[in-house]
Amino acid sequence: MTKSPEEEHPRKAFGWAARDSSGILSPFNFSRRENGDDDVTIKILYCGVCHSDLHCAKNEWGFTNYPVVPGHEIVGIVTKTGKNVTKFKEGDQVGVGVLVGSCRKCECCQQDLENYCPRCIFTYSATYHDGTKTYGGYSNMVVVDQHFVLQFPDNLPPDSGAPLLCAGITVYSPMKYYGMTEPGKHLGVAGLGGLGHIAVKFGKAFGLKVTVISSSPSKKNEAIDRLGADAFLLSSDPAQIKAALGTMDFIIDTVSAVHPLAPLLALLKLNGKLITVGLPNKPLELPIFPLAMGRRLVGGSNFGGLKETQEMLDFCANHNITSDIELIRMEDINTAYERLAKSDVRYRFVIDVENSLSQ
Amino acid sequence: MTKSPEEEHPRKAFGWAARDSSGILSPFNFSRRENGDDDVTIKILYCGVCHSDLHCAKNEWGFTNYPVVPGHEIVGIVTKTGKNVTKFKEGDQVGVGVLVGSCRKCECCQQDLENYCPRCIFTYSATYHDGTKTYGGYSNMVVVDQHFVLQFPDNLPPDSGAPLLCAGITVYSPMKYYGMTEPGKHLGVAGLGGLGHIAVKFGKAFGLKVTVISSSPSKKNEAIDRLGADAFLLSSDPAQIKAALGTMDFIIDTVSAVHPLAPLLALLKLNGKLITVGLPNKPLELPIFPLAMGRRLVGGSNFGGLKETQEMLDFCANHNITSDIELIRMEDINTAYERLAKSDVRYRFVIDVENSLSQ
Repeated sequence: MTKSPEEEHPRKAFGWAARDSSGILSPFNFSRRENGDDDVTIKILYCGVCHSDLHCAKNEWGFTNYPVVPGHEIVGIVTKTGKNVTKFKEGDQVGVGVLVGSCRKCECCQQDLENYCPRCIFTYSATYHDGTKTYGGYSNMVVVDQHFVLQFPDNLPPDSGAPLLCAGITVYSPMKYYGMTEPGKHLGVAGLGGLGHIAVKFGKAFGLKVTVISSSPSKKNEAIDRLGADAFLLSSDPAQIKAALGTMDFIIDTVSAVHPLAPLLALLKLNGKLITVGLPNKPLELPIFPLAMGRRLVGGSNFGGLKETQEMLDFCANHNITSDIELIRMEDINTAYERLAKSDVRYRFVIDVENSLSQ
Repeated sequence: MTKSPEEEHPRKAFGWAARDSSGILSPFNFSRRENGDDDVTIKILYCGVCHSDLHCAKNEWGFTNYPVVPGHEIVGIVTKTGKNVTKFKEGDQVGVGVLVGSCRKCECCQQDLENYCPRCIFTYSATYHDGTKTYGGYSNMVVVDQHFVLQFPDNLPPDSGAPLLCAGITVYSPMKYYGMTEPGKHLGVAGLGGLGHIAVKFGKAFGLKVTVISSSPSKKNEAIDRLGADAFLLSSDPAQIKAALGTMDFIIDTVSAVHPLAPLLALLKLNGKLITVGLPNKPLELPIFPLAMGRRLVGGSNFGGLKETQEMLDFCANHNITSDIELIRMEDINTAYERLAKSDVRYRFVIDVENSLSQ
């Protein structure tokens, strides 16, 4: 007989879970596995609130396994290590991102691209090697194989640094892969939310000219004054759009709603690259003429492998890159989800897990 | 007052033109400009029948300028050269492809990518520098600036070589640009028509493993026995598709009808590239998950610049690559269009202009 989430493992755990597609979260008692030889137990301090959490809580992608404890931007402190653990010791500040497992054997895993392993195991709403369900970071503690634990640099703040573990790597990885690191090139960032505002910061750190593309005129000042973008393009203003046609080398499209690609493609130069990282749940319309006539491409990317995620964290520590956050308490999560659905957050909610999650 | 096509230039010309969106062609008297200092006059021997000719004759892309004399896969013999012409002499076998002009000054032109010049001038249904309309190769002669004339290698047959000038370069150029030349990689070719069958030949010449993807079971034997493909994938057979998931490094998608991209994307490996060259006249549905989850991309490309087209012709001459053709007479063109619309041609119609176009 299947055991209940509370009984299947020996270690008691507590968090907040969604039970159905309402996506409403409430307190949830469950359990975590015993710390194995390769495992690290982490007391969770902070957890970022990713748009994926909301998609999953509401089953908008169609593969949610309820009850779901979301959260894959986890920063915490090591409280226990297995005997094979060499990378970490008790008291270390560490991070856990989107993955807690993969096959470790396939071509992807061999290339440090565990994020593309066909058998990769997501941090929540997935099935672990032992057949039990994974639960995420909206909880007091987590047990993770050391391979999937990141060293979280001491000079990176654990609260505003937490979103780097998903939002950060999700834009950093394609920027590296698609060659968006050549100083002087022109990057457009479509959508100024959790992913977009970090893309602006990476763009500037790489020496790019960065233009924020948004439908909200209210974001202009913030884009330029607060985030350091070079320019702002109001996507609803035909005159601004016309002036910008064919001027960008790359666009990172962070918009997660269904939206037209044609206006973005038109902003690209010859050989321009439009990289989507927003994961809309329905197909987008792709006009072929603008691709053909400018030898442009539309590429995808998901988050990143463990090695590259560590590289990204170290890069952020060296360049003082963090997320702009609104720190919330666990009990504020449902209100935060409502605001997130309306893109009403600047720019990432982070849950103060340690100080607000009490049973 | 605007002069008639017959009177605007001093040199009488004759061809077949479509007058309206019925796309039906009939005899047409018009004129060509005097041979200028940089021009070459070409007596046309053969002209390939490209799917673009059909799209344009029927105004399926919405920008046809009637009357239109289609044809941009032209092979002929030089009959006159201007005083600045150094590349050609009378009697040379030459080719003219998709372009007869460009600005020659912009970034694209400077990089030998005249095909991406915003002011490039198509061989037909376009406006030339002097304000007159361009007419294509379904005609007895043409006057072209030497820069846009190709040396057509003597050992390349002028009839079966003609389609290389559009179909050939249209697949060759993206294969080079997107890195599809590494021996041993696996190329899928979707659609086995004019473009597709040449893509198979280039793929084999580059040392790739080539799989033809088609909805017509009848094409299996031809793909393998006649064209030299390594494998054939019947796109309507779920078992075959399932076995091929995630096995291809690249796909060249030559299908010009609106079609779903999702099944093709699923065939690609990690980092796989789907390159569309078929120019459907409506947007295609692009699902974002398969892009993100395999770091795949969908890229476009139009034909190619003059330098690369010459390189391609020389490559074909060296590797005995030509198009498989059905040679037709000019008066067969309307029947040929009907068959082309049903993809009933193996694999390219070529008009025997010299021997069938008479006034």
